[in-house]
Amino acid sequence: MGRLVKAGERVRIAVDMDEVIADSHGRHVELYRRDFGVHLAEEQLLGRRFSEAVHEDHRLAVKQYAHELDFFSSLSVIPDSQDVLARLYERHDVFIASAAMEFPTSFVPKFEWLREYFPFFSWENVVFCGDKSIIAADYLIDDIPRNLERFGGEGILFSAPHNRKETRFRRVQGWAEIAELFLD
Amino acid sequence: MGRLVKAGERVRIAVDMDEVIADSHGRHVELYRRDFGVHLAEEQLLGRRFSEAVHEDHRLAVKQYAHELDFFSSLSVIPDSQDVLARLYERHDVFIASAAMEFPTSFVPKFEWLREYFPFFSWENVVFCGDKSIIAADYLIDDIPRNLERFGGEGILFSAPHNRKETRFRRVQGWAEIAELFLD
Repeated sequence: MGRLVKAGERVRIAVDMDEVIADSHGRHVELYRRDFGVHLAEEQLLGRRFSEAVHEDHRLAVKQYAHELDFFSSLSVIPDSQDVLARLYERHDVFIASAAMEFPTSFVPKFEWLREYFPFFSWENVVFCGDKSIIAADYLIDDIPRNLERFGGEGILFSAPHNRKETRFRRVQGWAEIAELFLD
Repeated sequence: MGRLVKAGERVRIAVDMDEVIADSHGRHVELYRRDFGVHLAEEQLLGRRFSEAVHEDHRLAVKQYAHELDFFSSLSVIPDSQDVLARLYERHDVFIASAAMEFPTSFVPKFEWLREYFPFFSWENVVFCGDKSIIAADYLIDDIPRNLERFGGEGILFSAPHNRKETRFRRVQGWAEIAELFLD
């Protein structure tokens, strides 16, 4: 995977939160096992969102998880995101762009989570939106194809089981590949 | 003031909250009178922010007002903004873009305030950011020149005593003038 930017070139990169820096999928798997005693394997999730992959009797309960007050504050960090984002933040203009508007109770927990795990981010570099077409940046790193479709710059798809069939965007498997694209 | 858009042309307009649709200045005046018994006249505010216009012994207290939990939920609506925004929302792509990140306690009250006074806005059309250069839109209506400077589209200055000396942007005196610019 070659570098996307020239030596010395500074670009603006917007970075999604859920599934890109925050492991909300892993938390869904944990909560589902806690509540229903079932472990969902990765192959059951291929091409589907979590709530589509579970038994239909469980769907409503699963859709409530992200509305729970402690959901966002309890998320693990996606591997290598802290280290690579810290280096990207030095080298480029980096914004966190999260579709928090769908879950108003998530605003403060998401903001606090960022302060805890990504303390180098200024509050000026955080955006909570609903529709990512409003983000003015050169690149958007996101796991949801619909967000990349709407975005005006170049979309980079962060690989996840649910987006495995998507072929329209440059795909990265993890933060080490993002480092290769944007760091010297 | 002529129309900015052609008949049938649909543009994207981002609209600031404080001083444009929410009267946070009026609430500052009220709270200052309550706490210090002083009424600040408009001429004392020309070219200055509220906290710069008050007696220096009061400055710290005044800067705390916007951090109070009920500050944003108690704001009055700027005249004509509900009616004109409802019509703009039908005719164009309209987003509310508020620099809420500076005051994390304001996220939920601001969001609830919007739901109460501008219920026609979808959550997808609301953005909380820190730096308005991240907003991708054709126009930004804002009272703060620094926000318009950073914005990539055309800035429209919503007139307020503190920005009276600013000459770099198209100035509107209120929502009736915004209707003239963008409605048929």
